[in-house]
Amino acid sequence: MLEGIRLIDDALKNGAKIEYILATQKALSELSSLDLLSNADVFEIPQHIAEKISQTQTPQGAFAVCKMPQCSLKLENCRRLLMLCDIQDNGNLGMIMRTADALKIDGLILCNCCDVFSPKTVRATMGSVFRVDFSLEKDANATLEKLKDIGFVTYAAVPRSDALSVAEHKFADKSVVLIGNEGNGLPQDVIDNCDNRITIRMNGTIESLNAAMAAGIMLWELCGKEVKSDE
Amino acid sequence: MLEGIRLIDDALKNGAKIEYILATQKALSELSSLDLLSNADVFEIPQHIAEKISQTQTPQGAFAVCKMPQCSLKLENCRRLLMLCDIQDNGNLGMIMRTADALKIDGLILCNCCDVFSPKTVRATMGSVFRVDFSLEKDANATLEKLKDIGFVTYAAVPRSDALSVAEHKFADKSVVLIGNEGNGLPQDVIDNCDNRITIRMNGTIESLNAAMAAGIMLWELCGKEVKSDE
Repeated sequence: MLEGIRLIDDALKNGAKIEYILATQKALSELSSLDLLSNADVFEIPQHIAEKISQTQTPQGAFAVCKMPQCSLKLENCRRLLMLCDIQDNGNLGMIMRTADALKIDGLILCNCCDVFSPKTVRATMGSVFRVDFSLEKDANATLEKLKDIGFVTYAAVPRSDALSVAEHKFADKSVVLIGNEGNGLPQDVIDNCDNRITIRMNGTIESLNAAMAAGIMLWELCGKEVKSDE
Repeated sequence: MLEGIRLIDDALKNGAKIEYILATQKALSELSSLDLLSNADVFEIPQHIAEKISQTQTPQGAFAVCKMPQCSLKLENCRRLLMLCDIQDNGNLGMIMRTADALKIDGLILCNCCDVFSPKTVRATMGSVFRVDFSLEKDANATLEKLKDIGFVTYAAVPRSDALSVAEHKFADKSVVLIGNEGNGLPQDVIDNCDNRITIRMNGTIESLNAAMAAGIMLWELCGKEVKSDE
């Protein structure tokens, strides 16, 4: 379920299949003026129902139920990938997906993360959930083997001083960076299974960055700096 | 007010003046075993009071009231600064402060931002509020003039294709980057008042990054890549 006019607009622009729309009278006229009602069944709902089903503090009164985007990532066609292991905070997952989209990652691999289709994650992606190619996996080590088999160099992001510095390292052409759980980082067996360990050098008194921020800086070095303006 | 054993520990390690501690019996024994009770008045509170005053879902039962850190930023001694204008989300402000600390900024200038001493911001900084030098300002343009007078080159972060690309630009030795409000960015008069406009090039379909993420990437390019491990 999508909530909010902006998100419904994003979903439609990116080819999402909307099954039906629930909206208050006020929201209906806005949706209609934006031409967002064309191909969906539409039901008008009263304000108090909108407030009841809303997950935001100031509901716009517009909701859409749509088919989940397909997880269509083709690893063979990718050069630069980010793999998230056990990310559990919806806000972090959404923010990482939004950043990955902005910085043009080829794809995201989500391994045992929180629900990418939860309303909170979808909202935090600001529509990027409809644009970024991703796949859902359960076994990080098996996925690593598959990536290595097709020529990927694998990098475990760790807060360790003996790891490669991402400020100085030149990534291999086919590279995947792994980011771990907010509290515990990557499991040791997954770290050991990667070709390299890579890190963001930090002020000595700090233990780690927020997981989304660490992912953002890795994305920036992995693919973001190559983005040229499309305009 | 600080909540949680980790935050109280961070505050004490960084010289914060704790006025008194409120803690449940269980939390008291933990605080005591970590030697965190030495110089403060301590009051034991029952579990139901801890639950009432807690701002977290699973309270640890430890609270400390401490003096606010002094805003002691000396602009003259700084080389690299980040200035935040109208950041309104406590989580974003906390995350930016944590990242600025990790990437060794010389100081943060907070201009009309949300309350840096609110429990939510303090928690999101993970203790960095006690380590980063910052100042609180009200007038962005007056602050810009002051910075220019002491030799700073000023950069407005904007999502605009005609701005300098942060991926390619070499910052002047004394540089300050300005980040604007989550929804509206920087005010036009502040942008006009800066020496340069600088941007993170993005995928064409994206309007902007989350403000904290944009700040993080700017921090990375401004000072983070220079950090050498202290260990």
